[in-house]
Amino acid sequence: MTAQTQTANDDTNRDLVLTRLIDAPREKLYRAWTDPALLTQWFAPKPWSTPRAETDLRIGGSSTIVMADENGTEYPNTGQYLEIVPNEKLVFTDAFVGDWKPSAKPFMTVVLTFEDKGGKTLYTATVRHWTVEDRKAHEQMGFHEGWGLCANQLEELVARI
Amino acid sequence: MTAQTQTANDDTNRDLVLTRLIDAPREKLYRAWTDPALLTQWFAPKPWSTPRAETDLRIGGSSTIVMADENGTEYPNTGQYLEIVPNEKLVFTDAFVGDWKPSAKPFMTVVLTFEDKGGKTLYTATVRHWTVEDRKAHEQMGFHEGWGLCANQLEELVARI
Repeated sequence: MTAQTQTANDDTNRDLVLTRLIDAPREKLYRAWTDPALLTQWFAPKPWSTPRAETDLRIGGSSTIVMADENGTEYPNTGQYLEIVPNEKLVFTDAFVGDWKPSAKPFMTVVLTFEDKGGKTLYTATVRHWTVEDRKAHEQMGFHEGWGLCANQLEELVARI
Repeated sequence: MTAQTQTANDDTNRDLVLTRLIDAPREKLYRAWTDPALLTQWFAPKPWSTPRAETDLRIGGSSTIVMADENGTEYPNTGQYLEIVPNEKLVFTDAFVGDWKPSAKPFMTVVLTFEDKGGKTLYTATVRHWTVEDRKAHEQMGFHEGWGLCANQLEELVARI
């Protein structure tokens, strides 16, 4: 067994994490993540767009954010809120589609935290998967670039609201 | 295609449900499901026993109920609370093991409701699965007999507390 193979076998990590210090109060970041009128302004990485968003912001409430590519083809993302601590924490998953109805395939759970750092906010998105394979697939789909671009757009939005 | 085959293909149900009218106030049923000292008195179908139970009763809190067979071999059941409405509703799943950490395999989500019916309680356990295959497997493992026996034991317990 080569060292490389051993490393691959030992790779049991199922999480992907994005962290960024953003020059805005955490209340604005929380609003940008929960208010449909704001979500449509930053959610999809350009040149994609976000034509619609619906957020039933309660434990068990569903969330649908519709992204569209350059041809206008729509890709809805449906999930459900799991934990809500206003301005501090938001947890949601695609394992349920609302009121604990299971989705077709549980892929990820997102834990967002907004920590106050003297008026700025330490923004952390921890994206958890049920399998190492799903984490790897998400990484290969471009998680770091995609979530990085979206964080840029989020940063631009909260600077002007 | 025979009618039987068609029925099998059309079987998209992913839920198993147990309903029972129990002659006890719903507060007692809720306690029996959440207090470790009570859970150990009824949870596992006899001759199995329930040596230990731990319940961190909060959204995201973990729950571990240990069952033991006649030889003393232990089978821990670990899950996590998703929604808590005291005396009315309790939702938990084995898809997480606590604080939104994904389990090895999401198998089921249990929605318990306790409805007041003039001092008696309409007790409903809806057990939801992510796939039809898992629902069928759970049924073949003896869901109806097992949960029925447990409901008998629950009924006996709440009659004497």
